[in-house]
Amino acid sequence: MSGVSVEASRTLLYGVGLGPGDPDYMTVRARDIILKADRLVHFCKRGRRGNARVTADAIIAPDPAREIELAFPVTIEVPVEDEGYTGPIAAFYDEAAEQLAGEMAEGRSVAVLCDGDPFFYGSFMHLWRRLAHRFPTEVVPGVTGMAGAWSRADAPISWGDDVMTVVPGTLAEGELTRRLADTDAAVIMKLGRNLPKVRRALQAAGLINRAIYVERATMAGQVVTRLAEKPDDEAPYFSMILVPGEGRRL
Amino acid sequence: MSGVSVEASRTLLYGVGLGPGDPDYMTVRARDIILKADRLVHFCKRGRRGNARVTADAIIAPDPAREIELAFPVTIEVPVEDEGYTGPIAAFYDEAAEQLAGEMAEGRSVAVLCDGDPFFYGSFMHLWRRLAHRFPTEVVPGVTGMAGAWSRADAPISWGDDVMTVVPGTLAEGELTRRLADTDAAVIMKLGRNLPKVRRALQAAGLINRAIYVERATMAGQVVTRLAEKPDDEAPYFSMILVPGEGRRL
Repeated sequence: MSGVSVEASRTLLYGVGLGPGDPDYMTVRARDIILKADRLVHFCKRGRRGNARVTADAIIAPDPAREIELAFPVTIEVPVEDEGYTGPIAAFYDEAAEQLAGEMAEGRSVAVLCDGDPFFYGSFMHLWRRLAHRFPTEVVPGVTGMAGAWSRADAPISWGDDVMTVVPGTLAEGELTRRLADTDAAVIMKLGRNLPKVRRALQAAGLINRAIYVERATMAGQVVTRLAEKPDDEAPYFSMILVPGEGRRL
Repeated sequence: MSGVSVEASRTLLYGVGLGPGDPDYMTVRARDIILKADRLVHFCKRGRRGNARVTADAIIAPDPAREIELAFPVTIEVPVEDEGYTGPIAAFYDEAAEQLAGEMAEGRSVAVLCDGDPFFYGSFMHLWRRLAHRFPTEVVPGVTGMAGAWSRADAPISWGDDVMTVVPGTLAEGELTRRLADTDAAVIMKLGRNLPKVRRALQAAGLINRAIYVERATMAGQVVTRLAEKPDDEAPYFSMILVPGEGRRL
């Protein structure tokens, strides 16, 4: 399908932020698009529905004829530097993009359901860079997972002139420590098996007692606890650590 | 009114994120609360309606009997380190908090309308720390102004293992330069009269050609331009600069 050129002015590709998980945190625009798009697309692990699609259950029943499931070929447990990851995953995005291009070439609008915000560490971005120059596109921002987390943790994240840093837990320990010690507020994403390392970095940066662990914020099974009181190092995909800023109180 | 203690289980204080400005980017929960709360509260400059209240016009007509306007006593043009700012502004928040406490003590629910997300550099936080321990409170996260900006700028902000830093333009020039040179992606807030300094810092950090200036994202009068092509150094309150990350493309 490569080389497909569509001159429709009607929007065909939507990247729709569904927010942190609670369906009430969907935007009005997201809801409208989900109700109207010809195809609903979501990413998932093989054999499991994706979280964004579960969020959308609140407003739309599953409809096999209308849905496109994009199942990742490899798990997030393979280190991303590994050729064994980047090869298959790039091929997966190529193939997914061509599948959606085929739908749009026939005039059907396609809404890609995204966790949080589509342009903030989103898988959608890999489709967007393959498709947005070819089809009229709209990106609908969403409430980020981190905003869901800090609101449920009762933890205003940044005050006054605070610098806020978003750090992936995948960084090397020394680098994590250095960055955490050099910011006023922090959000640490991509915990998983990085949690023991992140914990050591927070300790070294003198922040362990300010760190809040949040899991499945705004969803069923939500966990909010001081990291220092979390007894294990289990950290599923929807988890993060917040270090709230202590900037100017007025 | 200090010392008021209310044991109601009914939520009385709402901090409601209204998103970046386009009313369609309000969440379903925000809309429901705005329709139902006994009092609608918003911050503003003297003699001007606040932006969050303008956003809410899409769903609710002005109603003087129901609304509480909190007009800042000093403009943002006074340097915040100045006692001439912190004194009056703290007194303003004290007084505003007691006004809302008076409403809630009589059983009326109070919804504070917030630009973007309430817990991300929000004025609401100064009310929250005065009131949330006294009255049942709910904070509704919102789409941040920066998410509105990067979606409208067609600029995915963070990829793969990018570190993203949110930096207030109020920092000293050397500090701004250092932080910008040491991150993968950046959002620079609080431009105003800091823009010439921010421009120099981006130049020094080698980022001037990646910087995107966004004003009034998602609202009437939206401006998106490469900073290098912006001919002047005017930057109103609702403006920011994005430096999109260049992390892992798959």
